This record gives sequence, C-alpha cells and structure tokens, in this order.
Amino acid sequence: MNAEFAPYQNLQARCREIACITSATSLLSWDQETYMPHQALEFRADQLGFFSGWAHRLFTSPEVGDWISACEQHGFAAGAVPAANVREWRRQYDRQTRLPTALVEEFQRTTSLAREAWVEARRQSDFPRFQPHLEKILGLRRRMADCWGYEGSRYNALLEEYEPGARADHLRRVFAELRPAIVALLPIAARLNERTPADLLAGHYPVASQQAFNREVAAAVGFDFEAGRVDTTAHPFCTTLGPRDVRLTTRYDEGDFTQSLYGVLHEAGHGLYELGLPTEHYGTPAGSAVSLGIHESQSRLWENHVGRQAGFWRHWHPTACRYFPNLKQFTPEQIVAALNRVEPSFIRVEADQVTYDLHIILRFEVELLLLEGELPVAEVPAFWNEQFGKMFGLKVPDDAHGCLQDIHWSLGSLGYFPTYTLGNLNAAQLFAAANRALPTLAGELGRGHYGSLLQWLRLAVHQQGQCLPPDQLMRAATGEPTRDRCHVEYLRRLLAG
Amino acid sequence: MNAEFAPYQNLQARCREIACITSATSLLSWDQETYMPHQALEFRADQLGFFSGWAHRLFTSPEVGDWISACEQHGFAAGAVPAANVREWRRQYDRQTRLPTALVEEFQRTTSLAREAWVEARRQSDFPRFQPHLEKILGLRRRMADCWGYEGSRYNALLEEYEPGARADHLRRVFAELRPAIVALLPIAARLNERTPADLLAGHYPVASQQAFNREVAAAVGFDFEAGRVDTTAHPFCTTLGPRDVRLTTRYDEGDFTQSLYGVLHEAGHGLYELGLPTEHYGTPAGSAVSLGIHESQSRLWENHVGRQAGFWRHWHPTACRYFPNLKQFTPEQIVAALNRVEPSFIRVEADQVTYDLHIILRFEVELLLLEGELPVAEVPAFWNEQFGKMFGLKVPDDAHGCLQDIHWSLGSLGYFPTYTLGNLNAAQLFAAANRALPTLAGELGRGHYGSLLQWLRLAVHQQGQCLPPDQLMRAATGEPTRDRCHVEYLRRLLAG
Repeated sequence: MNAEFAPYQNLQARCREIACITSATSLLSWDQETYMPHQALEFRADQLGFFSGWAHRLFTSPEVGDWISACEQHGFAAGAVPAANVREWRRQYDRQTRLPTALVEEFQRTTSLAREAWVEARRQSDFPRFQPHLEKILGLRRRMADCWGYEGSRYNALLEEYEPGARADHLRRVFAELRPAIVALLPIAARLNERTPADLLAGHYPVASQQAFNREVAAAVGFDFEAGRVDTTAHPFCTTLGPRDVRLTTRYDEGDFTQSLYGVLHEAGHGLYELGLPTEHYGTPAGSAVSLGIHESQSRLWENHVGRQAGFWRHWHPTACRYFPNLKQFTPEQIVAALNRVEPSFIRVEADQVTYDLHIILRFEVELLLLEGELPVAEVPAFWNEQFGKMFGLKVPDDAHGCLQDIHWSLGSLGYFPTYTLGNLNAAQLFAAANRALPTLAGELGRGHYGSLLQWLRLAVHQQGQCLPPDQLMRAATGEPTRDRCHVEYLRRLLAG
Repeated sequence: MNAEFAPYQNLQARCREIACITSATSLLSWDQETYMPHQALEFRADQLGFFSGWAHRLFTSPEVGDWISACEQHGFAAGAVPAANVREWRRQYDRQTRLPTALVEEFQRTTSLAREAWVEARRQSDFPRFQPHLEKILGLRRRMADCWGYEGSRYNALLEEYEPGARADHLRRVFAELRPAIVALLPIAARLNERTPADLLAGHYPVASQQAFNREVAAAVGFDFEAGRVDTTAHPFCTTLGPRDVRLTTRYDEGDFTQSLYGVLHEAGHGLYELGLPTEHYGTPAGSAVSLGIHESQSRLWENHVGRQAGFWRHWHPTACRYFPNLKQFTPEQIVAALNRVEPSFIRVEADQVTYDLHIILRFEVELLLLEGELPVAEVPAFWNEQFGKMFGLKVPDDAHGCLQDIHWSLGSLGYFPTYTLGNLNAAQLFAAANRALPTLAGELGRGHYGSLLQWLRLAVHQQGQCLPPDQLMRAATGEPTRDRCHVEYLRRLLAG
C-alpha cells in the first residue's frame, strides 16, 4: 500500500509525538479545571506554554514541510486516507508557518491583556475600557488574515481556523434566510408561554441523584464509561485525552436538574464523536474531528433532537421520577413544554433553542463589519443595541448584557461564533437524514434505543475524520450543503407542540 | 553572582524543560491511578514511554556534558547552590550516559516480562516460575553496576540510585546491631499483647468521616490544601506535580480508620518535605529531595513519632470521637496501645513498627548474597524461610507469604529496600535532635501545635535540597551519621508504654 512511503511514515510518526504532547496538555488543562490545587496555577501556566510551543515547533520545522512536499509529489490516490492526511497537513502547515513569530507573540501578548481588560470592562459594563484592546486585536487579525491569504472576504481566512472551507458569503445568505424565519416564530412562542410558567420544574434535585440519572442517560445513548468519565467544573466541556479517553464535565444546580442533564447530554454528543473517530488514525487528520460546526452538530443533535423531545421523556420519565420524586406531578409532555419554553433574553449562553441563533447572527454581522472596517469599534455598543432591539424586541440595559457579554473577542476568536449556528443547522439536517435512512428511528428513540442512530452517525460523520471537508461531509451525509431549512422546520414543529 | 555563567544558565533552563516533562508524566501517572478510564491504559503507556524517553534524551545529550564540564572548570564556590547543582548534575549525567542504550532497553523488556511473571508466580506461590526472570535481572544489574563503576561492593553502585553515598559495608554494620536489638524486644511485645486484643478498635468508620478527620489532621500538621490534595487509590502514594502542587493518596477500610489516617499522615510527611523544598530551585538538584532514606524519614517521623503517640491522641481524641463515636469507649492510652501492638507476621507492608525492619534486614542480606553470587537464585526460598524462622519465630507457609511477596525485585529495584530502614533510623535520629533543639517540643505536640517541629525540619532537611549528600545532611542535622541507636531507644520506649 502506498502509505509505506517514508516521508508519509515520518509525518505519521511526528503526528504521534505531537498527539502525545497535546494529549498531555489536555490532561493538564482538564486537571486545572477539575482537581488542581489553587497555588499550582503559576507553574501550570508555564508548563502549558512550554508544551504548546514545543508541539508548534515539532509541526512547523522545515523537515515537516519537506515531507509534505514529497508526499504531494508522490501523489496518493484521491479519496483514500493518505491523500486526505496530506491535504490537511499542507493546509495546517501553511497556516502555521505563514505567520511570522513576532506576529504570533504580539497576538498572544495582546489577547492576554485583552482578556484581563474584558473581565474588568464587563464587570463595570464599561465598553471604552475594552475598546482599544478590540481595536488592536482587529488590526492583528487583519494582518494574520493577510499572511494566511484568502479569496473574497478577509473573514474567510479567519473562518478557516474553525470551519475549513466555510465562506462568509455562504453564511451571509444562509443567515439572511434564517433570521426572519426565527423572528417570525417569536409571537407564537409568546402565546405558548401563557400555558407553561417559567419555573414549572423548580424543586429540590440533590446533586448525587442528578449524577446518577445523568450517568444512566449518558450510558444509554452510548457514552462508554470504560473510555470516559464525567466531572464537575464551572463551565461544562468535553476534552479528549487519547483514542479511548474522553472526559466530560458539567455543573450542578440543586434547584434545576436540567442544567446538568443537558450539559452532560450536550458534552456526551461531543464525546460520542470523539470516541467514534477511527482510532487507527489517532493523531492524524483522518483520525481527528473535521470542524467546530460538525462537532457542535453532534452535541446539539443529542441534546436537542434526542433529549428535548416528548419521546425521550416518555421513556425516561419513570426513571427520572425514581431519582426526582418532584417530577411525578408532571406528564412527559409538560416537562418537554417547560424545557422548550422560548423567551427572548439578553445572554446567549442562557438562550432557548429558538432565539439562540439570533445572538449568533447578530455577532456574525458585527464581526464582518468590524473586520472589513465598515463599523468603527467605538460604535459597536450602539449598533449592537439597535440590532438587538429589532431582532428580540428588547432594550439592552447595559453593555455587560450586550456586546460585552462574551469572552471570545477578547481571546481574538473572530470567526468562531458562526460555528454555533452551523452546529444547529447541521444537527437538524443530519437528524432529518438519519430519519429518512432509518424509517423506524422515531419509534426506537421513544423506546430508549439509541444504537441505530449512533451507528448511522458513526458511519456518516465520526468515521470520516477529516477525509472530507465539512461541506462535502454534509453533502455526502444529507444530500446538500448546510442550509437553514431543516432547522427552521424543526423549530416550527417544536412550537407546534 | 557567579551563577550567571552561561553554561550554568543553560543547565538551569534545560532542567526547567525536563521538570515540565517529568511533572506531566507525574500527572499522567497520578491520573492513571485515580481517575483514568480503563480503556485509556494502552495509549497512556505509550505516552509515558514517549515522555520518559524524551526527558532522558534532553538530559543525556552531549551539550549537557559540555556544559557540566565547563561549570566544573569554572569552579563555583564550595558549599553554595551552584557547586551542589554541578556536583549532582555530574553524578546523574555520568550514571545515565554510562549505560549503553541496548542495555537499558534489554532491562526494560526484561523487567516488563518479569513483572507479569511475578504477578502469576505470587498468585500461584510458584517461585520456579519467577526464578529465570530474577536470574536475568541479576545479570543485567551486575552489568549495569559495572558500567556505573563502584568502590567496594558492586551493591554500592545500585544503592547509589536511591541513596547517594550509601555503602553496603556501613549498612551491614548498622543492621548487624539493629537485628538482635529488635529480636530482643519480641518477647516483651508478646507479653504486652495479653493486655490489648488485636481487634480492639474494630468498628464502623464511614469513609466520609475518615476523609474529614484525616483532612483536619493533615491540615493541622501543616499540609497546605491550597497546594495539594488527597485522593483515593489502591496503594497510597505521594507525587509532586509542581513547586506548589503535591498530591497524596490513601485507601479506606470502613472497619478500620487507622489505615487511611496513618496512610495520610505518612504521605503528608512526604508531602511536607516536597512542599518545603526551595521553590526557586525547582527542577534542579538544589530544589529536589536528596534520597529515599531521607524522604522516608519525613513520612515515618510524622506517621510514627508524632502520630502514634499518647500526646497525639490526647489532643485528637475529642475530635476523633465527634467523627467516630465508637472511640468514646477508649482512653487515648488504650488507642495508642492498640496502634502500637507488635506481632510478628509474614507480610512486610502490614508489619508493625518493631518487626518492620526485620523484613528489610532479611531482604538486604538476600540481595547482597544474590548480587555477589554467593546465593543461587534457586535457593532463595529455602534461605528466606530459614532466616525468617530465626528472626520472627514463624514458619513461612508458602513463597507468596515469603520471598515472593514484594514487587520490587520484578521491577529490577535491587538496593531499594534498605532505604525503608534508613528512613526509620533517620526519623528517630532527627526527631531526637529536634527534641534536643526544642526543649518544649513534647508539650507543644501534646497540644496539637506542630509549627516549630515543621520549622525545624524545614531548616534542617527540606530547605537543603540536595546541597548536602544524605549522610552529611544527617551529620549536620543530628551530629552523627545514620545509626540505629535512636530508633532502638524509641522502640524500647514504645514497649515500655
């Protein structure tokens, strides 16, 4: 087999070394969030910096470029794993080596200061304090985009970091259809709210009961506790420490079991993707997740399309009542109505399924205008508040509840937000395709049988690794590129009850 | 200051890199014992191998040798930190570079197979199954000793790994006095046992109560939970993940609170040493523990000389009774008598304070004879059982309870065992010196005030790092090299009640 070509094997071996390092940094970060004693912070930060610098040097050294060139000249058969690996190695190598070291270091210094400034600016709801930092970040991001190169919008060069092949134009078109479709749903949602009070499920749900119930649910959907675990952190996440080692986290509110449950189900969706990647290609592109928009589709599919549905609760209601006697007073349908209550609100991370994407669309529009120099940074708050009013029908009380709410810009992560909505759109589209391919799926899910859905996702998504770029993966799995149609239909059905 | 010599700074920087790596391997190992999901094992093993190989290459590369030579020619002032670092770097560099890679690899393969064979041999109490592995290990250890070089006994070259500067002759002399002194105590102990039944403290001690009580005790002796934590593992240990990050572990038996309590106090003793090392020299010899025999002295001092005493229990009895109502029926003196009950038994790790060192002395004698070729491996069981009978007055029922009980030989760790007894001797000698220096110490300990003892140990031991070799450290701290006198006196007092 032509993968026995020495430069290709050298690249595989180098990737294996880098995987050892990045897995260790993931463990160091996981430990920092879960168990690390407080005073360890300073050394841990040095240590993480050392490892990420070392992994970067290992991948960007000249011999890696030579090996990639040799592989390109060798010409692997299109469609097979080696060709996909070489394509991705080239993309990543060029991105990493095209940035001058001085620019990378300036970006790290700038975002480090910006993050501190943002924490303080949000606390005091004081945008001018953050403004010069955001201006500097935008300038650096433009320079980085110019180093990377792009066609069309400069924003494409940033999108490439999170969603290879995504284009601002395409997102603009999709979001232009999505925005009015969601806004049109808001009056319907408001009428439904009269039937279901906001605090319907409020009660006492002990942490130990939540943990036990969540574990039953996560195991049932296929998360393998021999190859993963769930811990507690301030912000839920999923991290991969090895081909058979995926760690989820969640947080607990004893007055609200849904936060930890849907946190676990969301992160388990990410975890199922990671555990479904082909382990024989671990560390190489063919063994890695393809994009954030596809990753988020897996978490949202299990969290929402499986977990926030009447069929799910008809099956789990008796078990849930064993752990949470308070739920005995409700029917599964009442629980689902409470879970899916729609209420425009200021904070993205607390948003319901319907209004969530409006937050993203607004932020995408602001990012595009900022990057292209069409909106001065000083005018962001006014622009934000005006657009927010139009979309949500709410008056933003202060910038902490408006344009300052999110950490991402202070990290320099422009181009990241759209992947949240891509995740929602991809989830709906993949779930619709799975239902077409598996006509008995709805009935199976209603009986708590998740195996055939997982198997379908394994083949259509997980096992692909990065062999297909995200848009081609969506075409192959669903017959079309990412569109808003399935998601809008899903939201309409949700409100139709 | 003359440490601004470039080769010295290069060595410091290299040590800092190596410390980042070894700290990561310590976290990987800690995680493996505490939280890692089962299926992660295979990748974790590869990863640990990768990191230890890499750390080894970083330290044994030729430029490191050049830097050390340059430092030696530069001539740092004797007694100061740089001179001590250079002395230790030289010692470690020579040890690591004198072994041919092929020999190291053969040793790793051999011990890996030997460990598996030992597990099975012990399970079936079948020494012949382990015999060829032990023979091969001895052959390799002899070759390694010859590569390292030694004066006097070849055993000295192995001791050097765990206890720099220790000599078989000295140990033989010390142990020759210690052995009869301990044997002479056994009849006294047997008479005492008539007063205190073996299961006196048996009761129900919930894990959560044990955890809370242990935490109070560990915090009181000075273990800083902002810079460390306690987790649960099958075998207790202490590991250092950074200058302010020390992790202890223990295990729980709900029928016996003493196992977890003294596990924590023992490991906290190790942890106090690690947290007391000078953080500004972290990663270099001056910031590292000096030897296993000194390390073990710190754990045994807190576990036994502080923790298993009447003063300790007079202070802690009311608190312990809050957590464990069962203890209300006993006086502190009864509890101490039960803790210090002496009963010859077969298994070292379950041995009491008095008979413990007999296990070590026997194993040391066997190791010496084996290494010097004076005892064929096939005759180990017979020799062991005969000597054991003479020392303990017990007939060994099978090899699993005899020469096969310990894992160390299968790991190739010959020369390790004596450090356990050195730890006991050093603990008694240091504690006696502390009492001479601090005349009010006994009273303070009886009131639960541990600060001045810890402060004395910080100055006499912890802050020294490796600036003095272990025997010089003992002379500086106690006025004499490691001897058996203080330990024997301590044991006699223990039995005098």
